[in-house]
Amino acid sequence: MEKLKFDANGLITAVLQDADSGSVLMVAWMNAEALRLTQTTGETHLWSRSRRELWRKGATSGNVMRVQEIRVDCDGDTLLLQVDPAGPACHTGKQSCFFTELDA
Amino acid sequence: MEKLKFDANGLITAVLQDADSGSVLMVAWMNAEALRLTQTTGETHLWSRSRRELWRKGATSGNVMRVQEIRVDCDGDTLLLQVDPAGPACHTGKQSCFFTELDA
Repeated sequence: MEKLKFDANGLITAVLQDADSGSVLMVAWMNAEALRLTQTTGETHLWSRSRRELWRKGATSGNVMRVQEIRVDCDGDTLLLQVDPAGPACHTGKQSCFFTELDA
Repeated sequence: MEKLKFDANGLITAVLQDADSGSVLMVAWMNAEALRLTQTTGETHLWSRSRRELWRKGATSGNVMRVQEIRVDCDGDTLLLQVDPAGPACHTGKQSCFFTELDA
């Protein structure tokens, strides 16, 4: 594994990007175990900060996110996952969590 | 302004995406002032956690990032900026900071 910098809570930021459309779907968190499970199963696993538990993305909704590739940024504190989403990423039913344009 | 959730340090995560190519360029941080300057000038301003200062992206390198659009995610704690980069986003000279593939 590359030199990854997990923060004081043992977490690293993960950006999920649709491998086909290039749409940024969501930004979430992983701990080392979530990353390991993602790498071994090929399906995106995250750490829920609100529920304080490991979370296989899509476990409830069925909208799993198969991972094509994982990249790490130059300072090692953020991951970029290219994924194939089986359905909407957002709990609202939207394809991406970034559906709200900020007023200028 | 929408209901944005800045963290305990007054910061919010910002994903910079190339508006043309869709490439995710970098993930950085903004405080309220960086966001205000970004909105009023149309150029990406960030908060450098290491230098503890406001940072007009490209101030030194010339590689400014003009902003086409800012979106906020469903829980209000992450911004997605569609930008037109004048040059490489990464201090290494790479177009994106995510140039390293993680070993499986």
